[in-house]
Amino acid sequence: MRIALAQINAVVGDLPGNSRIILSRVDQAKVAGADLVIFPELALTGYPPEDLLLKPQFIKDTAAHLKALARQITDLPCVIGHVEQGPRQTLFNSAAVIENRRIKGSYHKRCLPNYSVFDEKRYFVPGNENLILDLGGYRVGLTICEDIWEEKGPVDEYARLKPDLLVNLSASPYFVGKIHARHRMGTRWARLCRASVAYCNLVGGQDELVFDGGSFAMTSSGRLIASAPQFEENLLVVDLPVQSGRKSRTHPKAPTLRLSKPNPRLKPQLNSRTIGPLKPVEEIYRALVLGTRDYVQKNGFGTVALGLSGGIDSALVAALAVEALGKDRVVAVTMPSPYTSSETFKDSQAMADNLGIRLMTLPIENVFKGFLGALSESFEGRTPDITEENLQARIRGALLMALSNKFGWLILTTGNKSEISTGYCTLYGDTAGGFAIIKDVPKTMVYQLSLFFNTLHGREIIPASIITRPPTAELKLNQKDQDTLPPYDLLDKIIKGYVEEDRPVSELIRSGLDETVVRQTVRMIDASEYKRRQAPPGIKITSKAFGKDRRVPITNLYRP
Amino acid sequence: MRIALAQINAVVGDLPGNSRIILSRVDQAKVAGADLVIFPELALTGYPPEDLLLKPQFIKDTAAHLKALARQITDLPCVIGHVEQGPRQTLFNSAAVIENRRIKGSYHKRCLPNYSVFDEKRYFVPGNENLILDLGGYRVGLTICEDIWEEKGPVDEYARLKPDLLVNLSASPYFVGKIHARHRMGTRWARLCRASVAYCNLVGGQDELVFDGGSFAMTSSGRLIASAPQFEENLLVVDLPVQSGRKSRTHPKAPTLRLSKPNPRLKPQLNSRTIGPLKPVEEIYRALVLGTRDYVQKNGFGTVALGLSGGIDSALVAALAVEALGKDRVVAVTMPSPYTSSETFKDSQAMADNLGIRLMTLPIENVFKGFLGALSESFEGRTPDITEENLQARIRGALLMALSNKFGWLILTTGNKSEISTGYCTLYGDTAGGFAIIKDVPKTMVYQLSLFFNTLHGREIIPASIITRPPTAELKLNQKDQDTLPPYDLLDKIIKGYVEEDRPVSELIRSGLDETVVRQTVRMIDASEYKRRQAPPGIKITSKAFGKDRRVPITNLYRP
Repeated sequence: MRIALAQINAVVGDLPGNSRIILSRVDQAKVAGADLVIFPELALTGYPPEDLLLKPQFIKDTAAHLKALARQITDLPCVIGHVEQGPRQTLFNSAAVIENRRIKGSYHKRCLPNYSVFDEKRYFVPGNENLILDLGGYRVGLTICEDIWEEKGPVDEYARLKPDLLVNLSASPYFVGKIHARHRMGTRWARLCRASVAYCNLVGGQDELVFDGGSFAMTSSGRLIASAPQFEENLLVVDLPVQSGRKSRTHPKAPTLRLSKPNPRLKPQLNSRTIGPLKPVEEIYRALVLGTRDYVQKNGFGTVALGLSGGIDSALVAALAVEALGKDRVVAVTMPSPYTSSETFKDSQAMADNLGIRLMTLPIENVFKGFLGALSESFEGRTPDITEENLQARIRGALLMALSNKFGWLILTTGNKSEISTGYCTLYGDTAGGFAIIKDVPKTMVYQLSLFFNTLHGREIIPASIITRPPTAELKLNQKDQDTLPPYDLLDKIIKGYVEEDRPVSELIRSGLDETVVRQTVRMIDASEYKRRQAPPGIKITSKAFGKDRRVPITNLYRP
Repeated sequence: MRIALAQINAVVGDLPGNSRIILSRVDQAKVAGADLVIFPELALTGYPPEDLLLKPQFIKDTAAHLKALARQITDLPCVIGHVEQGPRQTLFNSAAVIENRRIKGSYHKRCLPNYSVFDEKRYFVPGNENLILDLGGYRVGLTICEDIWEEKGPVDEYARLKPDLLVNLSASPYFVGKIHARHRMGTRWARLCRASVAYCNLVGGQDELVFDGGSFAMTSSGRLIASAPQFEENLLVVDLPVQSGRKSRTHPKAPTLRLSKPNPRLKPQLNSRTIGPLKPVEEIYRALVLGTRDYVQKNGFGTVALGLSGGIDSALVAALAVEALGKDRVVAVTMPSPYTSSETFKDSQAMADNLGIRLMTLPIENVFKGFLGALSESFEGRTPDITEENLQARIRGALLMALSNKFGWLILTTGNKSEISTGYCTLYGDTAGGFAIIKDVPKTMVYQLSLFFNTLHGREIIPASIITRPPTAELKLNQKDQDTLPPYDLLDKIIKGYVEEDRPVSELIRSGLDETVVRQTVRMIDASEYKRRQAPPGIKITSKAFGKDRRVPITNLYRP
């Protein structure tokens, strides 16, 4: 049985575009001699369509596009994720089985995730039946994403139905290392059902999320025999070993599909070959590149711009942007103030030169003086404080936004997770922009990614002086991040424990972290929720990112 | 049977504070001779606690506070909303029945709303049992909020159990006119169960939400016999007619509570008296005042500031702020540019004078020139456009934020729903601030509220010239809103149809709205999602507000 897994990059809401991608993959799979082609969860609508699902017109339009798709699909059977109208205004997260221009059956997702970034119970009702296809006599069980993650869920029921192959349509968002959990799940499931496994995941960036692909196939012993690369589109075609002696009847109402006639000249594109999972740093790097590229492309931007400060965060963002879009679509802007040291200014220039990107220089001193003049009366008798620091950041934000308005550029912000956690950033200042690509990247990982980038390119594109200089916001004389924040290795441990794992403060202290530092940091994290609420979206790479993954009230008197 | 409904203003996360409020209401109810006192849904934690519920320590702390509360509650039986740990890391949205220092029973909410602003399936598992208390021989059925809104839900089961009284603990967020739906529901339910009804709602502002109170009691014929005012705390004490002949046994395991000894000297605070629901404009007005006051107070701000432009939006926001906080806690800032007409400047002064608030004047011309100078080289050969308009708005945003930083003031933004829908606002400019109190108020309602405010105070506090002048952003010469936007009465109809009701474009056109205008407006709405994502929170007053009520992807190629 030759199965094609179409790991496509569907765009949310783009029903005509997604239909075209689906049809082209069906054609490719046909050429490769596949017996069945599987598409990801909600491939037709893109994932997650969010509140588009509350628009009756969107549901109707999706149904019309599915029908039109079916009419163009001739002999090769397909399973396509879409949204399906159920009884009494309900919706199913559905998989349509299509063959010979007809929708021959439907599977409705049974387990609806409603945690982390997922809101599926907001939109869908669960299905309550398994579906086994008869594919030329073989029994093929269908599941969608979460169905295979639930203990004592649909998989356990399938196990009793003795399928030959179990298929999963997924839209499984990336976080670091998640692919290993998927493989473990696949193995467990293959062994439980004594069936081969074919897992087809979406790929591509969608606002805060990146879908990393990594579709795969396993034998019934749970051995990985083929896997698609992460972070790119792929059509994975694989010959799955099925025991022909095991053929048995499916339910009389089950969709019955024909196997294609064997053609020895047709070779699978990829078979008995697996691509080893990436190392964490490279995986994160690829996720950030794809997430950036897709946000920019899908939203129709040509060029991006960012403030290049001479620090490591903006250096990494510039590097990632060039990797995602090419050097001609990235503009760096340096906005020196009297507090900008000649070293950081030179480093910005070196960084832009090394990347081969355009560098604009917009000094802020005169505008800053203008602001101080406008405020001098109001501020009389007051000493300079954080106000004047923030003003500089806000002038830079306004300058970048002026470039954005004038030239249609998307502004990338450069704040990392350590800063955004603690509120060590200026709202409407360095947080001003459309996309915050490293907002879920802790500072310690910013360093690792920067070193990885240089290694990948075989030279010091990010200058060593940027990597080794103690971090500074340069908003006053001799300022260093570590005047205000704990050392980043300690800070990032606290963020992991408190933000990502919701661990109690007492437990963090018991684990050996300094009590005073933990309590101060947790206070900073809690107190800066209002800033995060107004921050641009960025790419989730950890098990818990800021954004829809973490929904904390601003008005909140709980003091842990 | 004398029931006390404690319509309290609980603060999210404030376990000690909420405990104190609860105890003080128990004492008051005791003095009033109540037999039972009811608190709102999740009264102990505040509503909605959102992802605080994912913190195991928060759950433990809540349990400890409930236990401590119980120890201090002696003879008067209470029903208190709280969060309860269930089996295997699950949580219940629970109502504890407390008497004589003991928790005598628990009801677990059965219907968990997961639509609109609600995410309850993210946190809770549903209960699966009804609970009837035996209160001195009377049968009292418990429900929590959504339980009474579901057709063929718990209420229908209660109907078969023949209760004497049905109680509902609610945290029902306000939108205009919702109280009528609650009354209709109460009547339907009273008649169905042939039981009296006691509905206790939360009151107070919490980020985007306002809980409007309006707790009430009904006879078994569905007649309203007592109601608490909306938008303020209240202890509603009411003698409910119950047929003493109808006493019957409850389930042997049901909590059994004693009635208090009748004391003719103890009078209910409010009985056989109902407060008529407010008219829509007044209701919205009160919601905005309470939402503003609570956001400011609960987040610990002393003073608020806002940019007073001479237009009607900022005039209304100033008026609402003064109503919420008093004139000494509101600072107006006028930031004239060369495009500011002498009329609007004078109107700002008149407005501040009429309210008796401090007015600061910070001209922006010099800062604007500074920016133009900094950008002159980059912008060479380009004609002025929206960039220069936005720059002025961003200078104003930065000036307000400088005042915020220097003096600790909260900045109120002044954008209305019509502007925020269409993106007719400058990100980091007029959207810069902590709280956007009229962001869910359509422009046509801004006018009605302004007239209402003047009527309420018996004089033209908001000058007639502000109300009658055609709206303008004054960011270029002779600019009028209606150069860019359709007339507001038409615009607001489109927003209601497309945003609040998710009606298809074709239906809006068929209803008689101009096709070109509808299509242009819908495009503007869809294209400005990225701005809304970075906008400050504001108060929900319609059936669908921006924020967690409407979750639309930014990357979205659906074109309706």
